Amino acid sequence: MTTVLLAGGFGKMGVAIQNMLAEQADLTLVGILGRTPHEATVPVFTELDEIDVTADVWVDVTLPESAFDNATYALSHGFDLVVGTSGLAADQVSQLRHLAEKYARHAIIVPNFSLSAVLLMQFAEKAAQYFPDAEVLEIHNPNKVDSPSGTAQATASRIAAARKAKPVTQYRADAARGEAIDQVPVHAMRLPGYVAEEEVIFGAPGETLRLKQTSFTRASFMGGVALAIRNVTQVDGLAVGLDQLL
Amino acid sequence: MTTVLLAGGFGKMGVAIQNMLAEQADLTLVGILGRTPHEATVPVFTELDEIDVTADVWVDVTLPESAFDNATYALSHGFDLVVGTSGLAADQVSQLRHLAEKYARHAIIVPNFSLSAVLLMQFAEKAAQYFPDAEVLEIHNPNKVDSPSGTAQATASRIAAARKAKPVTQYRADAARGEAIDQVPVHAMRLPGYVAEEEVIFGAPGETLRLKQTSFTRASFMGGVALAIRNVTQVDGLAVGLDQLL
Amino acid sequence: MTTVLLAGGFGKMGVAIQNMLAEQADLTLVGILGRTPHEATVPVFTELDEIDVTADVWVDVTLPESAFDNATYALSHGFDLVVGTSGLAADQVSQLRHLAEKYARHAIIVPNFSLSAVLLMQFAEKAAQYFPDAEVLEIHNPNKVDSPSGTAQATASRIAAARKAKPVTQYRADAARGEAIDQVPVHAMRLPGYVAEEEVIFGAPGETLRLKQTSFTRASFMGGVALAIRNVTQVDGLAVGLDQLL
Amino acid sequence: MTTVLLAGGFGKMGVAIQNMLAEQADLTLVGILGRTPHEATVPVFTELDEIDVTADVWVDVTLPESAFDNATYALSHGFDLVVGTSGLAADQVSQLRHLAEKYARHAIIVPNFSLSAVLLMQFAEKAAQYFPDAEVLEIHNPNKVDSPSGTAQATASRIAAARKAKPVTQYRADAARGEAIDQVPVHAMRLPGYVAEEEVIFGAPGETLRLKQTSFTRASFMGGVALAIRNVTQVDGLAVGLDQLL
Repeated sequence: MTTVLLAGGFGKMGVAIQNMLAEQADLTLVGILGRTPHEATVPVFTELDEIDVTADVWVDVTLPESAFDNATYALSHGFDLVVGTSGLAADQVSQLRHLAEKYARHAIIVPNFSLSAVLLMQFAEKAAQYFPDAEVLEIHNPNKVDSPSGTAQATASRIAAARKAKPVTQYRADAARGEAIDQVPVHAMRLPGYVAEEEVIFGAPGETLRLKQTSFTRASFMGGVALAIRNVTQVDGLAVGLDQLL
Repeated sequence: MTTVLLAGGFGKMGVAIQNMLAEQADLTLVGILGRTPHEATVPVFTELDEIDVTADVWVDVTLPESAFDNATYALSHGFDLVVGTSGLAADQVSQLRHLAEKYARHAIIVPNFSLSAVLLMQFAEKAAQYFPDAEVLEIHNPNKVDSPSGTAQATASRIAAARKAKPVTQYRADAARGEAIDQVPVHAMRLPGYVAEEEVIFGAPGETLRLKQTSFTRASFMGGVALAIRNVTQVDGLAVGLDQLL
Repeated sequence: MTTVLLAGGFGKMGVAIQNMLAEQADLTLVGILGRTPHEATVPVFTELDEIDVTADVWVDVTLPESAFDNATYALSHGFDLVVGTSGLAADQVSQLRHLAEKYARHAIIVPNFSLSAVLLMQFAEKAAQYFPDAEVLEIHNPNKVDSPSGTAQATASRIAAARKAKPVTQYRADAARGEAIDQVPVHAMRLPGYVAEEEVIFGAPGETLRLKQTSFTRASFMGGVALAIRNVTQVDGLAVGLDQLL
Repeated sequence: MTTVLLAGGFGKMGVAIQNMLAEQADLTLVGILGRTPHEATVPVFTELDEIDVTADVWVDVTLPESAFDNATYALSHGFDLVVGTSGLAADQVSQLRHLAEKYARHAIIVPNFSLSAVLLMQFAEKAAQYFPDAEVLEIHNPNKVDSPSGTAQATASRIAAARKAKPVTQYRADAARGEAIDQVPVHAMRLPGYVAEEEVIFGAPGETLRLKQTSFTRASFMGGVALAIRNVTQVDGLAVGLDQLL
């Protein structure tokens, strides 16, 4: 049995995690940290110094501005740590790593809880060793203002780093040819109906390999959250990325 | 039975057409116009004024520089006309239309003989009436130097013209967002292994529609060539595009 | 302005239609027929003989057992009719056609409101004229007990009817080769995550054409509902299938 | 520099390998074993006892009936061994393993040289640990008489073996639901235009992962042949499957 304190438990992601925890026999919610008081079946705290419960794992899905303070508190008060934000600065990550080591705790920062997205990245990295020619296509809802997505950028960077040979295709910066991230062209579509989709397309003489993941709903993140909670103790100190646990 | 004179009969496309004609019971090759003498089972001519056979249809797969003179000759000497080049200038097309009408002949200019590509364009045009949000992705071999492809550009233009409502997505000229052709983003990938692929992706609340055609080999053009030869008499004067016959 | 009476307005589909109507300036909800009383901004009726409002169009998303009686009432009391159920028997459809003609009303029965699904079927039918080799793949949620889906079966039948040539592939009834519906193999996958997806794959020498639609949420039906309401007056008597309006 | 003796050097696959070797600076062809005499730039042998050259690696792309005798000869005469056939019996493989160990040689049997197919299988196996619900779709040319393909069967078996949880979907043996191989449904399409395609589709709450490889031409095997030649010395004794080297 693993006990959980959930910070940010009344946002959309937090509520989804509450529901997920209620369905998992081996995971138990013991307290929630929120910005304002809410009804709940477990104690709810609105300030760090009110917290009077302990738990095995502190799960933090608050905004970046509070996540760092929360994480600092958690590591120095006996919690292992799962942080679900990509907004921490590099020096904040360094400080948290230092704290995790000092207090002999286990911590993981997870920019993307989607298991299919994390596996896709791993597979793309492996395939790039054999297929240096690759392009990335991501499709998101029109509400997403930036492009390409952080996940697509990270995928492209990992493909570039994993290549053992030069690609056949000479990239040329035409408008239709995408944005080259470390020499891997990335294309972004914005279309209603889509939540999030990422595809990596490899080409080699006489064959192609296409790896694609699609997220339909927030439910897709819950498998990754549960996996992180259950396995965070495998991390030495602090790790970044769910694939550290796969 | 339809008889055919084939201009450009010894290029790659010409040889493929020779083979296709040999397999079709209702189509008969009666002569070939080539730049240099070749062995063949039918008379071979290297100059227009040597031609001493007649045929129902003149099929022209020569380069743009000779296609116009050939086409002029054909229409004024009793042939119906199938021209397989996209390289004619607008005023050349006008002159050929005038000739086709003057001599009461039937002529079609076919930039792309791929039936799947032509159907895809028709379907995309129809779908755009109901789904104004669309993007185009084309993938070709790295040897293709220009991007996006002419077919992708034409597809985007037809989607834009067919729309009845404004798309939800506001296009912004980020590098990863493709080249907007008439406000339809077009993305081009260049990967070994691929010959030619075109996909149109539509998005609407809660649903998507994806139309994709892939060409593996030149064999994919032969169905379109045969269709054009068999049906060119349905054209009044001159038409552009195989979809005029579908 | 088109006025609407909505039968079945408090089921999942009914609520979605209420919300859609509230957003469309040219469509106005004037009454709801439900099985039990509900709060609403318009009059709610629980019996046919209570109805004391008139409307241009009666939209019926009730279960098959009440849809026929409702439809009979609507056509004989001055409403045009949009019925969103596939469960009516053939003789019930005949009777409704007779009524629509007798009262000079316009009626459409719509088994599938998804515009992308309806367009896909139309496109598949057209493509089958040129590509006789085709197979169908549908993917639905594990909760769907029957297979293949009604839409996939209808798609296969329309492909078979539209073919002008015999397919190259000789179908053989191996377990992995799908269920042949009118000689078109249909494959059904059942996977969590999916709501509904249908793909038709055509193959011909050197090329393939793939047409695919994916439904993520019930929102995908609203475009079709609005289209049916706005255009039902184009129907002479009674029609079946949204594609009669496309 | 690695030297190669090529058995079966004048079949379609053999000729392709000859051409590939000619292009690789670090691989040198030093002799060919064929069934009948041919012109070549290296010595050609038609019987095993004629062979009077040595090489680092014996590459065998002969038919199964001669592959075993060839392999026996190779391992006992100082060659490492790459065998490209899936037709060897289990006891033949055992005998070859024994020989490889006895003579301290390195041997690999490769049923499928396509790197994309081999990577796909590896990735599917990994993903199945997290996504127990999976189905396989393979598409081949109508000329392929058996179904499903050996690669699809192997993929399904490896997915089944890798699962850590029971799939949500209860398989029911409907005609459209494919052939269940170790409880993984496998679907086979036969369509002109296709050479070979395999796709594995995973579904989980709110997300899907699709892995697909397409082979267009025999050129797709050459990367795998070169990889096997270059890395066979990494094998202890005898291994089966190119993925042992990835």
